[in-house]
Amino acid sequence: MNKKVRCALLITGAILLSCGLSAQTSPPWSAETIQQLKQIHQAALQDDYAYQQAAHLTDNIGPRLAGSPQAAAAVQYVADEMRKLGLDVRLEKVTVPHWVRGEEHAELVSYPGQVAGIGQKVVVTALASLNCATSPEGITADVVVVNNFDELSALPREKVQGKIVVFNVPFDEKLAMAGFPLEAYGQAVAYRERGRLEAARQGAVAALIRSVGGANFRLPHTGETGYDPKLPGIPAGAVTAEDAALLARLTVQGPVRIHLVLTPKMLGEVETYNVVADLRGSKHPEQVVIVSGHIDSWDLGTGALDDAAGVAVAMQTAQVLKQLKLQPERTIRVVAWMAEEIGVFGGRAYAKQHAAEVGSHFAAIETDLGAGHAMGINVCCDDVLKTLQPVSDVLLSSGAGVLRQSDDTGADIIPLRIAGVPTFSPMQDARTYFDYHHTAADTLDKIDPQQLRENAAVVAVLAYALANMQTELPRKPQPVPDWMK
Amino acid sequence: MNKKVRCALLITGAILLSCGLSAQTSPPWSAETIQQLKQIHQAALQDDYAYQQAAHLTDNIGPRLAGSPQAAAAVQYVADEMRKLGLDVRLEKVTVPHWVRGEEHAELVSYPGQVAGIGQKVVVTALASLNCATSPEGITADVVVVNNFDELSALPREKVQGKIVVFNVPFDEKLAMAGFPLEAYGQAVAYRERGRLEAARQGAVAALIRSVGGANFRLPHTGETGYDPKLPGIPAGAVTAEDAALLARLTVQGPVRIHLVLTPKMLGEVETYNVVADLRGSKHPEQVVIVSGHIDSWDLGTGALDDAAGVAVAMQTAQVLKQLKLQPERTIRVVAWMAEEIGVFGGRAYAKQHAAEVGSHFAAIETDLGAGHAMGINVCCDDVLKTLQPVSDVLLSSGAGVLRQSDDTGADIIPLRIAGVPTFSPMQDARTYFDYHHTAADTLDKIDPQQLRENAAVVAVLAYALANMQTELPRKPQPVPDWMK
Repeated sequence: MNKKVRCALLITGAILLSCGLSAQTSPPWSAETIQQLKQIHQAALQDDYAYQQAAHLTDNIGPRLAGSPQAAAAVQYVADEMRKLGLDVRLEKVTVPHWVRGEEHAELVSYPGQVAGIGQKVVVTALASLNCATSPEGITADVVVVNNFDELSALPREKVQGKIVVFNVPFDEKLAMAGFPLEAYGQAVAYRERGRLEAARQGAVAALIRSVGGANFRLPHTGETGYDPKLPGIPAGAVTAEDAALLARLTVQGPVRIHLVLTPKMLGEVETYNVVADLRGSKHPEQVVIVSGHIDSWDLGTGALDDAAGVAVAMQTAQVLKQLKLQPERTIRVVAWMAEEIGVFGGRAYAKQHAAEVGSHFAAIETDLGAGHAMGINVCCDDVLKTLQPVSDVLLSSGAGVLRQSDDTGADIIPLRIAGVPTFSPMQDARTYFDYHHTAADTLDKIDPQQLRENAAVVAVLAYALANMQTELPRKPQPVPDWMK
Repeated sequence: MNKKVRCALLITGAILLSCGLSAQTSPPWSAETIQQLKQIHQAALQDDYAYQQAAHLTDNIGPRLAGSPQAAAAVQYVADEMRKLGLDVRLEKVTVPHWVRGEEHAELVSYPGQVAGIGQKVVVTALASLNCATSPEGITADVVVVNNFDELSALPREKVQGKIVVFNVPFDEKLAMAGFPLEAYGQAVAYRERGRLEAARQGAVAALIRSVGGANFRLPHTGETGYDPKLPGIPAGAVTAEDAALLARLTVQGPVRIHLVLTPKMLGEVETYNVVADLRGSKHPEQVVIVSGHIDSWDLGTGALDDAAGVAVAMQTAQVLKQLKLQPERTIRVVAWMAEEIGVFGGRAYAKQHAAEVGSHFAAIETDLGAGHAMGINVCCDDVLKTLQPVSDVLLSSGAGVLRQSDDTGADIIPLRIAGVPTFSPMQDARTYFDYHHTAADTLDKIDPQQLRENAAVVAVLAYALANMQTELPRKPQPVPDWMK
């Protein structure tokens, strides 16, 4: 090797080394972006745009069951509002089952110590699934109360056959109030999801599931329940915590017989839409950062916490950037997902429709755990936590400085996460969220305007930060689970 | 005056003086009684009798609306239980109005921003009074929302005529949680009592009153509402806090029209009973100390806090004395009052029926503010507070050592109080009482067994102390108020 060559190699090596160092040390955000994030943070904390949007979706449009005229109106409303802001709006087709509630009531017809001939009201609400209704006249059967799946499977089949199984599994309020509401929910919701199937497997004629939620005010919590074409489609309802406990106490005293009427219907499939609204990126317009919530809701309340709040917060990201005249480098895509409640139809349809461009989805954010005080950011992956520190520093002044790895960043963006897209959500104080979740009490007054602003600020800052990030995020595709196939 | 006479006078004076001194300094209770009070306190704190009674009244008998078969069954049940304990039981006639709930629902039929042709549910419940129903088809009218009586009376009559007046007066939860639940209730209940009349006076076709109670879980709170034969009998209902707030927000945006169906009925008068059960006094059997609660309840829940708890606590006084084989010196009379909710019929009937013996009613106790932690004793009169100190000392160990003058010692014993009988009630932590009061959520699970025992202990100790008191209590008859005439 002659001197010239050695010299050239050394120089090349030095350049390579220098480039390598530069790549390792180049900051994810420019100083200018950090300044802009501070501006966004302050502006979002002072703006009632999200609250006004949530108010319109809940007070004026009302409950937004997938397939309903209200859900369709909400799609048009969000699309129009995003167009008003100058976004590029598309309605992307989603075919959803249109489930509607029917009659629902129940009565103890005979039970120990009753006043002769006098029944007693049991408060129920239908759960949503296929073949999940009684006849219009209802059914009358004895009750078997169990405290868990093991107790049910330990019963001889003849003790269950022809009966109504009541799953009396309390929501663990202490766990929720200790800061683990999703863990408390996870434990109890297993019964809403699988209780109907396990009861059917043992020959029951219906299943009643203790409502999944805290704060006992005789409110039934609705929701989806399991369906298995291999099992009889028995009626399933949610019963209030009070009534489940009453049934448990009375069955200890002697036989308890209930008359149950639940006549929900599946009206068939309806073609509806995800709202997809782009705030085009200046530098990498083809790369996308999603901010989102789901636009459908259950029908008992007006879906304020679940999830008008999430949609409104996502809308405010676009509004605050427009207000500040900030164009992100990547495209920020506001998405209002359709039909999360009845089976994540919008989220799944989007992932299929955009499968070819999934690689250009830089990140996805969803807000779907209410509107409680925003404490920070839930982050898909441990190795992103440190990278986000400068963003967390911006959010610290509104009490949102926590960065936490979480597997729960919103159901609608699970299909994207599985495809490798890094996902995020605001970390919210959700300790009382499940008190209202899926009930008639999920109404606008449950949203605290200041706390909603805090969430809007977290999402707007995070979205802009991701859109202007100068480095890449790790991508970790996962195997597709059964429910998505 | 000769020496003999002077001497006799002096002796008489000395005797009188000595008697006077003796009367001033003799303790209200013997040392033996104080020992017995301690025994009673401990025994009551360890006994689940009251809870079992409350469970039967609520779980097995259910709601106990005055005039209903369940209220009649509850009368027989309490009478039988008291007979089992060996008490001398009488059923004393009370004639009550038999009010029954009918259909009740409401819907926004037109309002700003609505989805064309789609209404929105408004959660209502009927209030009880004469001529207080709509036709079966209901009425449809525009809404006027007011925040207080002044706002209503300031409106020109033509702005109210033909409309449905909504009184959107929030229950002051902060005041209640600060320890003043009755004050918070008093402020808000004025609208349930008089709202219907004031609305009728201005030409309204119906009145909807924001529910009187805290904790907003879309539950309407029922109750009695005013009646004035000189005013048109317009329909009146309670609307949930959420729905009242919704109506307030929507009416700011434009006209709001509601369809309202409320078809309760007054079925006429029913002859029913107060249960009066005597544990005969050993020394002054003709003198009576009443322990009581009301046996009727509203129909939405099962009347656990209001007021199965009160009846059960009164029953336990008899049970614990029987268990300890303690016979009081005065007669302890357990009373289960009928028809408190619909207008204190039982309490008024008793005072009339026993008017001739009111002087031999030494004292009366009622429990009718739930079953929260017992903190002490509410005492009718300031000048009795000091006298009761030895009783308070006994109660201190269960956290019930507070003595407080209070004008609220239970509605059913107001007629006795007005006639001069000293009245008392346990001082309870009632900060959340009005969250459940008159709602479907007033069910057995709201009674904490340990807290119920604390109340039973206070009432049993107080009743026995009053029955064995060696001194007199001051008696202060008051003018009879209009509602009692």
